[in-house]
Amino acid sequence: MLGLNNEIQSLYDSILTKYKEAIILQTASSILHWDMETKMPPRGIELRSQQLSVLELAGHKVITNPQNGRLLDSIEKHPNKYFLSNQQVRNLYLFKKVYDENTKLPDSLVSETAKQQTISINTWKKAKAAKDYNIFKEDLKKIIELKLEAAEILMDVKGTKTPYDALLDSYESKMSAEKINRIFNIMKKGLIEVINKINDSEKKINTEILEIKVPVNDQKKISQILMDYLGYDILSGVAGGRLDETEHPFTTGYYDDVRITTHYYEDKFTSSFYSVLHEGGHALYNQNIPKEYMYQPLGEASSYGIHESQSRMIENLIGRSPEFVSYILPNLKKIIGKPFKGIKLRDFYEAVNVVSPSKIRVEADEVTYGLHIIIRFEIEQMIFNGEASIEELPQIWNQKYFDYLGVQIENDSEGIMQDTHWASGLFGYFPSYALGNIYDGMFYKKMKRDIPKFKKVIKSGNFIPIKQWLKNNIHSKGNLYDPEDLIKLVTGENLTVKPYLEYLERKFSKIYNF
Amino acid sequence: MLGLNNEIQSLYDSILTKYKEAIILQTASSILHWDMETKMPPRGIELRSQQLSVLELAGHKVITNPQNGRLLDSIEKHPNKYFLSNQQVRNLYLFKKVYDENTKLPDSLVSETAKQQTISINTWKKAKAAKDYNIFKEDLKKIIELKLEAAEILMDVKGTKTPYDALLDSYESKMSAEKINRIFNIMKKGLIEVINKINDSEKKINTEILEIKVPVNDQKKISQILMDYLGYDILSGVAGGRLDETEHPFTTGYYDDVRITTHYYEDKFTSSFYSVLHEGGHALYNQNIPKEYMYQPLGEASSYGIHESQSRMIENLIGRSPEFVSYILPNLKKIIGKPFKGIKLRDFYEAVNVVSPSKIRVEADEVTYGLHIIIRFEIEQMIFNGEASIEELPQIWNQKYFDYLGVQIENDSEGIMQDTHWASGLFGYFPSYALGNIYDGMFYKKMKRDIPKFKKVIKSGNFIPIKQWLKNNIHSKGNLYDPEDLIKLVTGENLTVKPYLEYLERKFSKIYNF
Repeated sequence: MLGLNNEIQSLYDSILTKYKEAIILQTASSILHWDMETKMPPRGIELRSQQLSVLELAGHKVITNPQNGRLLDSIEKHPNKYFLSNQQVRNLYLFKKVYDENTKLPDSLVSETAKQQTISINTWKKAKAAKDYNIFKEDLKKIIELKLEAAEILMDVKGTKTPYDALLDSYESKMSAEKINRIFNIMKKGLIEVINKINDSEKKINTEILEIKVPVNDQKKISQILMDYLGYDILSGVAGGRLDETEHPFTTGYYDDVRITTHYYEDKFTSSFYSVLHEGGHALYNQNIPKEYMYQPLGEASSYGIHESQSRMIENLIGRSPEFVSYILPNLKKIIGKPFKGIKLRDFYEAVNVVSPSKIRVEADEVTYGLHIIIRFEIEQMIFNGEASIEELPQIWNQKYFDYLGVQIENDSEGIMQDTHWASGLFGYFPSYALGNIYDGMFYKKMKRDIPKFKKVIKSGNFIPIKQWLKNNIHSKGNLYDPEDLIKLVTGENLTVKPYLEYLERKFSKIYNF
Repeated sequence: MLGLNNEIQSLYDSILTKYKEAIILQTASSILHWDMETKMPPRGIELRSQQLSVLELAGHKVITNPQNGRLLDSIEKHPNKYFLSNQQVRNLYLFKKVYDENTKLPDSLVSETAKQQTISINTWKKAKAAKDYNIFKEDLKKIIELKLEAAEILMDVKGTKTPYDALLDSYESKMSAEKINRIFNIMKKGLIEVINKINDSEKKINTEILEIKVPVNDQKKISQILMDYLGYDILSGVAGGRLDETEHPFTTGYYDDVRITTHYYEDKFTSSFYSVLHEGGHALYNQNIPKEYMYQPLGEASSYGIHESQSRMIENLIGRSPEFVSYILPNLKKIIGKPFKGIKLRDFYEAVNVVSPSKIRVEADEVTYGLHIIIRFEIEQMIFNGEASIEELPQIWNQKYFDYLGVQIENDSEGIMQDTHWASGLFGYFPSYALGNIYDGMFYKKMKRDIPKFKKVIKSGNFIPIKQWLKNNIHSKGNLYDPEDLIKLVTGENLTVKPYLEYLERKFSKIYNF
C-alpha cells in the first residue's frame, strides 16, 4: 500500500511541477505587462509584444504537454486515488480544467484569435477616436466569430448548455447565463426602483467639494494614508507592494510582489482616492492567499467576481460608508489644508455618494453601476444567441441606455465603443463586475454580524478586524471553491441579490430622504 | 538550383527562428533583472529568482533542441551552402557556437553551478561583511572546481589551448591568455612608468571640488544635460531609454528599450556624473546596432571588451578631456549655483583626473585602473594553472597590490574579496575591462584623425560627429566580427597597447608636468 501511495503522490507531484512552471511564466508576463504600462520607454513596444507572446506560447506548451494528459489519466485510474486529500483533488481538478481547455482549442484558432485581438483593439482605438462605428464593426464581427468558434469547442469540454455559458465560465466558474439572468432581473428591478426614488426626491447634493483642486503631491500623501490604513506595505524593507501611476488604475501580482496603480487628477482627487482603495482591495486578496498554495492551482482567486467583490468592498461598502468618511475627513483636512477648511462631514459624505445616471460605466455611482453591466450582459447574450446583428448593436445599446438609465447616447464612442473589453475578445467578463457587488451584499451582511461594534471599528480607523474577516473567510480559501460554493460556505446562503439591494435601499434612503 | 537555394534558405530561417525565441526570452529576463534592481518590492525576491531560473531553462531548451543540431548539419553538408551570404554564415557560426557550448555542458553541471553560484555569492556577502576569508574560501573553491570542469569541456568544443582560455573566450572571442599576457606585460610596464613619474612630480592636485555638496535634484538635472549631450533619449514620446537609481550603476536592454542606472551621492557628484557618461556609452552601443540584425546573433555586441571600450570612451577619453570639461563646467555652474562659483576650469579638470593608487578597483583612476585588472588576470591564471592554492590567494593578492600599486591591504574585504565576480563564477571576465581601455587607445587615435577639428567639436558640445563615428565604425557592425578583427578593420592595426599608453603619457604629462 505504501508503494501505491508513493506512486500516486509522485504522479501528483509531477502535475504540480508542470503547473508551477506555467504559473511562474505567467507571473513573469505580469511583470512585463506592468512594466509596459508604467516604465517601458515608448519605443519598446514592438519587442515587448514579442516577449509577451513568446512567454504565452511557452506557458501554453508547458500546460498542453501530452505527458500531462497521461499523468492525469494515470491518477484517474489509480486504485489509490481516494487517498488524495481534498486539496490535492481540487488542484488536480483545476489543472485538468486548464489542460482540457488549452488542448481542445486548435493552435491555429488560438493564434488567429491573438492576431485578431491586436487588430480589433487597434481598429477600436481608431474608430473610437473618430466616433465612427463603421470603422470598427467588421473587426468586431471577426473577433466575435472567433470567440464563438472557441466557445462552441469549450462548451463540449466544460459541459455547458450554450457557447456563451462556456465564456462566462472562464471568469465565473459554474456560473450560467440562466442563473445570472435570474438575479440580474431582480437586481434590475431593484436598482430602477432606487433610482426612481432618488429622482423623485427633493434632495439635491452639492458636488463642488469633489472639484476642489488638490495638488498631486498632497494626493500622494493621501494615497499613503489609505495604504497604511489597509496595511498594504510599499515602503518598508520587507515591502510586498508598490504604487505607480498609469492611465487606468490596475492591480497585478502574486503573493509577495503585488502592485497597484492609480491616476492623479488635480481637479478630481476622489478619482485616485477611490482607485487606491479599490486596487488596495484587490491587492489584499492576492497577498493573503495562503503561502502553502503558492505555485499551485489553489493559489489563485476563486473567480473574477469574487476578486471584484474584494475591491468594491473596500472602495464602496467600507470606503463610502459614513464611518470611514468620518475617519478620513480630518486626515484629508490636515493634508489639503486651506481648500478643505470648513468642509462638513455630512456634505463630504453626500458628495462621494451622489447618484447620477450617466453614459460611461467607469464613472458610474454605486447605484447605477449595475445597470451598465446588465445592458452589456443582455447584449452579449443577444450576440451569442444570434438575436442581434453587428449592424444593430449601436441602436440596441442606445435604446437600453435610454430605457434603463434615461440617458441619451450622442455617439458610438460614448455608447457601444466605450469599453475595450469586446475589442479584446473579453465576452462574458462584464457580469463579474456586478456579481462582485452582489457577493459584497452577502459578505457585508455576514461581516457586520461577525465583527463586534462593526461601525465603531471603521470609524476609529481600525481596519484590522475587517481585514482579518476578509482573510479568514475569503482570501485564505484561495481557489478551493467555485464562487457560489464559497459564498454558501461563508454566508450560509445561496446566491441572492437581496442583501445588496437592502444595503443600497438603507444607505441611499438616508442620503436622499426617501 | 532554385529549389536547392530555397531549401538552404529555409534551413537557415529555421535556425534563426530558434535564435529569435531564445534572444526574446533573454531580453525578457533582462527586464526582470532590471526590475529586481530598481522597482521590485523586497519580498518579491523568492518569486523573482524562480522566474529567472524558469526563463533561463526555457532559453536553454530552445537552444539545445536536438533539431538545431540536425539543421546545422544539413546546412553544413548542403551543396549550396556557398550561396549563403557572409552575414548568414556569421549568424550560423555564432549560433553553432552557442549550440555547441550549451549542448556539451551536462545539465547536471549547469544546474549544480547555478546552485553553487547562489551559495557562493551568499557566503561571499557574509564573509565580506565579517572581513573573514575563512568563511568564503570553501565555497570559492567549489565554484572554481565547477568552472574548471566546465572549462575543460569547453576547451575541446572551442579548441582552445587551456581551460582558462575557454573561459576568456566567453567574454572576448578568440582571445587567449598568451595574447593578453603579451599586451598586459607591456601595459604593466607602461602604467608603472607613468605612475612613477606622477609620484616623482611636485604637482599636488586639490580635490576639494569633488566633495562640494550637490543636492540630488541638481544632480538629476546634470544627468539630463549629459544624456541630452549623448542623444540618449529618456523623455520624448518615442524615447528608447530610461534612467533609474540603483546601488551599482548598470546598463541593460536591447535595441529600442535600453535602460541605464546611476547612484547619487550628495558629497560626490562626479560619481553619478561619470556613471551617466559611462552607462550612456554602453547604451548608445546597444541602441545603434542595425535594426536588420534584430533577433539575430549579429544583433549583439562584438565582445565584453568592445562594449567596455564604448563606455570608457565616453566616460574617460571624451568625458575627462579638457575640451569636454570646458564645455560642461558652465552648465554645472548654472545648475549648482553658489557652491560652484569661482571654480576654475584648470582646477576642475585636474580634480577629475587626479591619479592616486588605491585598494579598490571601482574607485580607481584612469592610470591605475589597468593594474587592478592585471593583478586579477595574473591570479586567475595561477588558479586555473594550479599554481596557487585557495589558502594562498589573499597573500598573493596583497603582495601584488603592494608591488604594483604600493598600497597595503589591511583586510581581505578590501583585498581578495572586494569584487563579486569570482563568487559569481565569472572567471575570465576581468581582462575585458582593461582590453576596453586598450581598444579605446586604438579607436581614439583613429577617430581623432577621421573627425576634422576633433577638439573643437568636443569643446563646442557637439557630440554628433563622435557618435556618428562610433556608430559607423563599431555599433553598426553588431557581432559581424570578433574583437581583434573589428579592431583591425577599424584602425588598420593589429592589437597594440601603444596608442593607449601614448594617450596616457601625453595627457598626464600635461597635468603633472613631467
